[in-house]
Amino acid sequence: MTSIIRVAIAGYGNLGRGAQAAIKQSPDMQLVCVFSRRDPASVTLIDDSVHVYAMDDIAQYKDDIDVLILCGGSKSDLPEQGPALAGLFNIVDSFDTHAKIPEYFAALDTPAKKANKVAMLSVGWDPGLFSINRLYGEAILPVGETYTFWGKGLSQGHSDAVRRVDGVKSGVQYTIPSESAMEKVRNGEQPTLSTREKHTRECYIVLADGADSDSVRDSVRDTIVTMPDYFADYDTTVHFIDEQTFERDHQKMPHGGFVIRSGVSGMDNAQNNQVLEFSLKLGSNPEFTASVLVAYARAAYKMNQAGENGAKTVLDVAPSLLSPKTPAQLRKELL
Amino acid sequence: MTSIIRVAIAGYGNLGRGAQAAIKQSPDMQLVCVFSRRDPASVTLIDDSVHVYAMDDIAQYKDDIDVLILCGGSKSDLPEQGPALAGLFNIVDSFDTHAKIPEYFAALDTPAKKANKVAMLSVGWDPGLFSINRLYGEAILPVGETYTFWGKGLSQGHSDAVRRVDGVKSGVQYTIPSESAMEKVRNGEQPTLSTREKHTRECYIVLADGADSDSVRDSVRDTIVTMPDYFADYDTTVHFIDEQTFERDHQKMPHGGFVIRSGVSGMDNAQNNQVLEFSLKLGSNPEFTASVLVAYARAAYKMNQAGENGAKTVLDVAPSLLSPKTPAQLRKELL
Repeated sequence: MTSIIRVAIAGYGNLGRGAQAAIKQSPDMQLVCVFSRRDPASVTLIDDSVHVYAMDDIAQYKDDIDVLILCGGSKSDLPEQGPALAGLFNIVDSFDTHAKIPEYFAALDTPAKKANKVAMLSVGWDPGLFSINRLYGEAILPVGETYTFWGKGLSQGHSDAVRRVDGVKSGVQYTIPSESAMEKVRNGEQPTLSTREKHTRECYIVLADGADSDSVRDSVRDTIVTMPDYFADYDTTVHFIDEQTFERDHQKMPHGGFVIRSGVSGMDNAQNNQVLEFSLKLGSNPEFTASVLVAYARAAYKMNQAGENGAKTVLDVAPSLLSPKTPAQLRKELL
Repeated sequence: MTSIIRVAIAGYGNLGRGAQAAIKQSPDMQLVCVFSRRDPASVTLIDDSVHVYAMDDIAQYKDDIDVLILCGGSKSDLPEQGPALAGLFNIVDSFDTHAKIPEYFAALDTPAKKANKVAMLSVGWDPGLFSINRLYGEAILPVGETYTFWGKGLSQGHSDAVRRVDGVKSGVQYTIPSESAMEKVRNGEQPTLSTREKHTRECYIVLADGADSDSVRDSVRDTIVTMPDYFADYDTTVHFIDEQTFERDHQKMPHGGFVIRSGVSGMDNAQNNQVLEFSLKLGSNPEFTASVLVAYARAAYKMNQAGENGAKTVLDVAPSLLSPKTPAQLRKELL
């Protein structure tokens, strides 16, 4: 067991709450405090044994924190906070705008190197554990195809989109991976799959009070299934439910997915199919992402202790660094 | 793309042949030669574009080889060859006697450190990729249980055991994971599973010429299913087939398996089930193990180039080291 790692959380939404719970499961870590942009007095923690401080005061806690977990969003929070805080702390975040990762990496790398800190970005499951498995797949089976399927899971962006439709009071959208497409991939067929063939979408909609009629249903359904970018390229099913059912069955944030590498081995690539699959079935997407963040916070701290600095991703982290166990213990118990 | 890595193979059975095929799939690698303890003239390569040399002469090729892949067995070859060759080359092997890994690690570490080489042991899928996933599982979801299931796959040791039974001419044994046990695990039930509940065993037997009778079948079946250590603790099915069927359907070496981590997240661990699963469905067990060895040979070479030495396992290897792509390319394409 390494010495106790002092961790803090910046940002206290679903992800920050998940991080607090995950730190509590880690005997080698201690939560020092939480930072929020809201009035600290207005923030209620799921476990109030630590203080909430104003984000504006964060620099003064520089020497009290071994690693800071950034729990803000990728759109506006992290691009601003990441580069600023990478010059003060070892940080870990879940930046997930795939196309902007190279740019964000560079923005963290310079201040982190200058401050001799580690800035670990894009930690979670996609980007994150799924990226690692895409890499293992293509490195081990260079002749083959990689497939990523998402779901069954609640998509925040698509749920927001259905809630903006006229006549909708509340609603959620689930992304469902196609079982038949996955079966083809698992059988080594290496199919070419269209967007429509890979996933379907299911919406559960509560109509605005008093608005329920056949014509409203038809119009809401039609607006959703033809919505460009979000639904038009998919087979979408729209279910209308009452508010009680919505409150009872659709408050969780499940998610998950599959990375499958289908390759061939043997001389002239013609001998044998080899299929590698990684999957997640998550009861709570934000809590799982937070659990991944906490394990990589441990790694970020250890890497910095070992003299490393600069921006890092999950692809740069040796698995053993994620564990509180010693290398000898890991070899004995897990190999 | 890094410069071309010069690789050699020591030992040319199923694993060595698989390694030669896998190197051919890797544009950043070049096979330099093969070493064998047999008379080199008697060794037929699947691609004869390189020479076969006598194992006894291996030291004289010290400067021509960046990394040597040891393709011998764990029982007698590797314990002897590994420590001797770790002082001459960067080496990679698939030592898979789980209980003896700590001792074998120590036996490689000293000569490798002295020679400033990397000695990477126990590479493959179990130990290997399965070990990595057991680690990811428990590090990310510290409150939970890890389950490993093997199969469907041909077990060499159990096949040898059935072939030793009186009246058996040829035979193979397949290990089958229990679907119902896996379903319980995937549903987050965290069951306690007995040996019998996790796997069943299926044997396909060809009886000795002229020996086929009801009483011989009964006696062979009885001897197999009650065999201590191998079959007595399992539900075993014995199928009797003719030689033609055996030659047609049972010559491949398929294998695979599942590592499943079932954990809980949230405050007081009571909130949500989280399930992480890694699985392999392998058309050829030795060819896949060889593919893993070749990817880790790349990593061993890169680690040594970066100044590292001593014994290493897959748990010490950052994923990015397995790929011929640059870190920037990996971030752009795979994160």
